[in-house]
Amino acid sequence: MQQTFRLVIDCPDQIGLVASVSQFLADHNATIVEANHHTDLQTGRFFMRHEISTDSLKLDHKSFVEEFTPLANEYQMNWKLSDSNKKQRVALLASLESHCLVDLLHRWHTGELHCDIPVIIGNHPQMKQFADWYKVPFHWVDFKALGKEAAFAQITTLLQEYKIDLTVLARFMQILPDTLCQELQGKAINIHHSFLPSFAGAKPYQQAYDRGVKLIGATCHYVTKDLDEGPIIEQSVKRISHSDSAADMVRKGKDCEVTALAHGVRYHLEDRVIIHRNKTVVFA
Amino acid sequence: MQQTFRLVIDCPDQIGLVASVSQFLADHNATIVEANHHTDLQTGRFFMRHEISTDSLKLDHKSFVEEFTPLANEYQMNWKLSDSNKKQRVALLASLESHCLVDLLHRWHTGELHCDIPVIIGNHPQMKQFADWYKVPFHWVDFKALGKEAAFAQITTLLQEYKIDLTVLARFMQILPDTLCQELQGKAINIHHSFLPSFAGAKPYQQAYDRGVKLIGATCHYVTKDLDEGPIIEQSVKRISHSDSAADMVRKGKDCEVTALAHGVRYHLEDRVIIHRNKTVVFA
Amino acid sequence: MQQTFRLVIDCPDQIGLVASVSQFLADHNATIVEANHHTDLQTGRFFMRHEISTDSLKLDHKSFVEEFTPLANEYQMNWKLSDSNKKQRVALLASLESHCLVDLLHRWHTGELHCDIPVIIGNHPQMKQFADWYKVPFHWVDFKALGKEAAFAQITTLLQEYKIDLTVLARFMQILPDTLCQELQGKAINIHHSFLPSFAGAKPYQQAYDRGVKLIGATCHYVTKDLDEGPIIEQSVKRISHSDSAADMVRKGKDCEVTALAHGVRYHLEDRVIIHRNKTVVFA
Amino acid sequence: MQQTFRLVIDCPDQIGLVASVSQFLADHNATIVEANHHTDLQTGRFFMRHEISTDSLKLDHKSFVEEFTPLANEYQMNWKLSDSNKKQRVALLASLESHCLVDLLHRWHTGELHCDIPVIIGNHPQMKQFADWYKVPFHWVDFKALGKEAAFAQITTLLQEYKIDLTVLARFMQILPDTLCQELQGKAINIHHSFLPSFAGAKPYQQAYDRGVKLIGATCHYVTKDLDEGPIIEQSVKRISHSDSAADMVRKGKDCEVTALAHGVRYHLEDRVIIHRNKTVVFA
Repeated sequence: MQQTFRLVIDCPDQIGLVASVSQFLADHNATIVEANHHTDLQTGRFFMRHEISTDSLKLDHKSFVEEFTPLANEYQMNWKLSDSNKKQRVALLASLESHCLVDLLHRWHTGELHCDIPVIIGNHPQMKQFADWYKVPFHWVDFKALGKEAAFAQITTLLQEYKIDLTVLARFMQILPDTLCQELQGKAINIHHSFLPSFAGAKPYQQAYDRGVKLIGATCHYVTKDLDEGPIIEQSVKRISHSDSAADMVRKGKDCEVTALAHGVRYHLEDRVIIHRNKTVVFA
Repeated sequence: MQQTFRLVIDCPDQIGLVASVSQFLADHNATIVEANHHTDLQTGRFFMRHEISTDSLKLDHKSFVEEFTPLANEYQMNWKLSDSNKKQRVALLASLESHCLVDLLHRWHTGELHCDIPVIIGNHPQMKQFADWYKVPFHWVDFKALGKEAAFAQITTLLQEYKIDLTVLARFMQILPDTLCQELQGKAINIHHSFLPSFAGAKPYQQAYDRGVKLIGATCHYVTKDLDEGPIIEQSVKRISHSDSAADMVRKGKDCEVTALAHGVRYHLEDRVIIHRNKTVVFA
Repeated sequence: MQQTFRLVIDCPDQIGLVASVSQFLADHNATIVEANHHTDLQTGRFFMRHEISTDSLKLDHKSFVEEFTPLANEYQMNWKLSDSNKKQRVALLASLESHCLVDLLHRWHTGELHCDIPVIIGNHPQMKQFADWYKVPFHWVDFKALGKEAAFAQITTLLQEYKIDLTVLARFMQILPDTLCQELQGKAINIHHSFLPSFAGAKPYQQAYDRGVKLIGATCHYVTKDLDEGPIIEQSVKRISHSDSAADMVRKGKDCEVTALAHGVRYHLEDRVIIHRNKTVVFA
Repeated sequence: MQQTFRLVIDCPDQIGLVASVSQFLADHNATIVEANHHTDLQTGRFFMRHEISTDSLKLDHKSFVEEFTPLANEYQMNWKLSDSNKKQRVALLASLESHCLVDLLHRWHTGELHCDIPVIIGNHPQMKQFADWYKVPFHWVDFKALGKEAAFAQITTLLQEYKIDLTVLARFMQILPDTLCQELQGKAINIHHSFLPSFAGAKPYQQAYDRGVKLIGATCHYVTKDLDEGPIIEQSVKRISHSDSAADMVRKGKDCEVTALAHGVRYHLEDRVIIHRNKTVVFA
């Protein structure tokens, strides 16, 4: 895999901005592999992602950051420069359902998800078998024995010890406390098993069955303290009919969950997502 | 178009039921063009639709009904026998947006929608031009001048005078009064411009834009007095992204609305929809 | 899981046929969980699938078959009565790509695919790791060392020894010899990584990339001696754009392959597919 | 509708290219409403589209072109600067099927398609009624009476007389002669009623029915002398099943045709399509 730097920017829109950034890149001989721009005309905010081949580039990561900083300050940028060779460290949190967990592990194993997965955490012990197969340390945090507060304290410690960059709730059926949501802001992704905002909260498939909808779905979103209200990264739907029982809907919905979560996590890992207020710009 | 009878039944499930109905049909030499069955295992209710060619059948409509009635009573059936040659009379109600209206008119004109359209009613005069093209009488009911109550009284009268079987709200932006909803139960279809139950109520596209969803949709449902809560017949979705403005979403959403409404109306006209509590069985 | 019998029939359409079958079922107190009918009006062929709860049924499998046979003969039926408790024995054949294999194994592991998987066969040794995880015997058939003829002879022997009912080619990159295709007729399922009949043959993603299509797909079909020409069970598509490289298309296509194959295999295992000439009736 | 200029460029990729273009735009105070970039890494070709608000811009169209030309030459650009206020002149060609024609006319009427439609040409007289409704001159070119050569000569003359920029074959069932294809290169759009390259040529729905596919589609592409081989702009698909007759597939396919053609035409009119060899870059 070719090494790239990803320069991701959001800032107030301004004439000359793109010219300045492009000139900077040209001055340092950057070959641009992929470039995306978006202007939010309502808020006047500008979003930009460049994927730059490091082959031709006359700057290493450190000097790029140093040289770019004055420009970034001038334009009041939120920005980062990530290095595709530096893998993010991802923790997977799961409960009893294995479909999302196993799918992410397999995509990671085959290299589709370019990251490290140093730890899997379960509030039940059952997912250990899959962790073992993929030789990832598994921690069972026993919510029943510990109580919710101590359990989450233990999870917080684990995330710190393993130096986790991204926490993925792969059908983790525990609601994170507000403080942890706050700490993990923009760094924790959840999969909700409905097409949000429809059927937020518990038992979305039963809700969908009761309402008699003709399509079901799943929503991949950033975790915020307002449950199921975080910025949406990806959604997926499937057609159903009267002949689908609530159990059929669960089965079909799983395929939506797997796909939406896998996409969302990949977009995040490739720095394709920019959060703006309660929405996302996704340069897919 | 070949003439058919459509025998549509719902009743408590019972062993021997299908045998009895099938034997009745065989005894009268019925060739079955299409047959659909569904058992709702939760409620123990059985649903059945037969489309029967009249060519070989040794009964006319009247005698079929007479002969079938004892069987229907025995099994406590809700049932009807409709004749494909007897077109339903459909009223289209519209406001200022033409896309759904024009689409339905064109599908009717080309024979895809097998019905009569004896009247179009608008709460604004603008849709008259399209009514004129298709030579359908247009009535402008002036809500501003009349007030809501008198206006709906006038609409009710029109529906009666034109002997309307099905009322289609093709983006008709007025909320029907409860009494009219009651009268038109199971005989009025609405298109809501969101993927219900998400974004019920007013301005769904703005709501969707504000929430930052990644798919938008439309919902075709029966009108009930609980706004946007009626039994859903059909739903349709389209993918959107951050680069879609609220205006883009309106444009894309229209394609969803047109498709979902056209499908819903056709299913109803072909007696493919059975309402059960707040849900539908759709033998599509 | 509730035990059911699945009565699957295809025969010339005839008045009285459904009545006779339904009466037979009623006479033996059969509760019908799901019933599907289809008449092919072009060929006058009738297709029928009943899923019958064994709870109330007054026949065991053997006596059902005996009692039903005269009726079946009278109507010249192709038919079978399968028992949901008697799991089909499925062999998975794979090469170097793991996505379809791992997905099927996981669905089997969680009970979504109700079957036995007694053996996995690879023409390369790499898939052994996944077989080991799921504790399924793995046989590496070394095509290079053995030559094609001997290799397929070995595979044929394995399928016989393991008493295989269904052979699934989960991205198995070897073309089966005609004689084996003949033997496995209706009992071998392949996944082709294109939306057939587009891009049959080798390197479909490269073909798709070169042609500049805007959607790619996958096709699950029965194996026949005419490569990529067998009856189609299921197809799946995904949208792509100019920004997708051939490698991106491979990645996106894999999700199509996984879904289409999983559906196709499940339909087959649940006796939902009837092959008619070169097409399928799928009671999904 | 806000006036914009659309600067559309394709040229060999080169470091400094984006910087130069962006600097030019900044120097003339251009506010960029939408910007898209794409590098084809296989061919080293770069594609770029800027939509520029004319409000702040300190150049009119003529002086923009003059000032930009040296830069364009330096980078060997294919380029154009189009003015959103200058509507393209579109000719619609149709035969006996009205669905695509009527859909385009309605989208034009409501302003979704921003163009002029000065003429509709039919090889049969039946579409005149729709032309009349929308007050567009209709020319019946009688292929039977004239013979194919004279008929196409007449069409060519009409396209010239009406100063047509874009010719849309809205289910026009005559194959254009090679010379006309050549003349209209990149300026004529066709809708083919299959998911190309599947089922090219005549009767695609019958072909699809015979093959037993599970999805049907439509393809919007530029006309080239190799029939159904031109650069694809947009494709659309719908799920079908064994229960769909060839007639049902025609009906469902029409919805695909309408959508794919409407999208393709809009993309073209908004200068979102760049043809590169036999493929398109579509900045949708």
